[in-house]
Amino acid sequence: MRFKVPEVTITRLSLYLRCLSELENEGVNVVSSSELGERCGLNPAQVRKDLAYFGEFGTRGVGYYVKELKEDIKRVLGLDKEWEVALVGVGNLGKALLSYGGFKTHGFKITVAFDKVIDEEKKKAIPEGCELYNADAMVDVIKKRNIKLAIVAVNQQEVQNVVDTLVKAGVKGILNFVPARVYTSKDVVVRTVDLSIELETLTYYVNLKLSE
Amino acid sequence: MRFKVPEVTITRLSLYLRCLSELENEGVNVVSSSELGERCGLNPAQVRKDLAYFGEFGTRGVGYYVKELKEDIKRVLGLDKEWEVALVGVGNLGKALLSYGGFKTHGFKITVAFDKVIDEEKKKAIPEGCELYNADAMVDVIKKRNIKLAIVAVNQQEVQNVVDTLVKAGVKGILNFVPARVYTSKDVVVRTVDLSIELETLTYYVNLKLSE
Repeated sequence: MRFKVPEVTITRLSLYLRCLSELENEGVNVVSSSELGERCGLNPAQVRKDLAYFGEFGTRGVGYYVKELKEDIKRVLGLDKEWEVALVGVGNLGKALLSYGGFKTHGFKITVAFDKVIDEEKKKAIPEGCELYNADAMVDVIKKRNIKLAIVAVNQQEVQNVVDTLVKAGVKGILNFVPARVYTSKDVVVRTVDLSIELETLTYYVNLKLSE
Repeated sequence: MRFKVPEVTITRLSLYLRCLSELENEGVNVVSSSELGERCGLNPAQVRKDLAYFGEFGTRGVGYYVKELKEDIKRVLGLDKEWEVALVGVGNLGKALLSYGGFKTHGFKITVAFDKVIDEEKKKAIPEGCELYNADAMVDVIKKRNIKLAIVAVNQQEVQNVVDTLVKAGVKGILNFVPARVYTSKDVVVRTVDLSIELETLTYYVNLKLSE
């Protein structure tokens, strides 16, 4: 799996995974590329092309075995195990992320949280199985626990510093919720979540509806 | 603009918009599909295909005029005006969204917020230019102000009720942050933001890095 897979394909793998889970829950065993495409909102050619990056998952004239394909994609995405995640910033967004149900369902567990100021209110926001530390402890704690994934939810002025510290701690993947450009070395991946992109997609459809 | 454009294309338009803004800031006037593709992480054929849905933006052998294309995409997405947005739920996530800088930059303004319980702490979280109301007032206030976009950040058990109320109030586009399946009539668009998808994309790359 050393060849370069386009980022959009990787994003769609998560989408396939969700559709396959639905199909599995509905008791479907085999799915064609057109059925899978319809459910995911993609054309069948795209589905076949995406899945072909990862070897021959499908059987010509039959389709994809739902359970098998799901497990294969999970393995490709590295989701066949639970991931420990470090959270930096326990403000409003950080607190919301700590209680976000979606992470656990998909194999992510925020096990350590950091903030530059620790108070009673922040302590109360920490769920069971997670530990709250002062930001000074970031490198030590993350190295010791060998955590490779982190979520950053701090202020715009702090984000670059925090990212630099996380890289020093050995983190390889960072999910950044701060709308700011962040620089890192090449062997660390940073994804910045842009919440306005989601709203922008909506306005297109809302405009369509309003002009109907 | 009545034909059906695939959702993935719409999502990519936001991406093009961001890349074009960057190019504009860098003083670039004309960009080829391959340059634009490289910046956005897409292949040139995809770029040409996406932009072709919206008419002939490019000039063969020259490329796209950055400023013009940016304005065209903004118009297509309905971003040539400011959008009022209603927020439902002023918990941790709601508070975080109220202070999220990215919305304002892209023409979105949360002007009304609703919660079933109003207290001093929530009042403090409301920025200037936004008004806080009890959830009971949702239909009246939204209808009166003719707001068409809403963000939902409530509990999992409340989300369907809230969405039904928003639809009754005339909202046409809903951004849902609650990891739950929501049902609406066909003339309302609901997008559910799945924050774990972003983490899943990261794990793929982190696995690659760790195996290098």
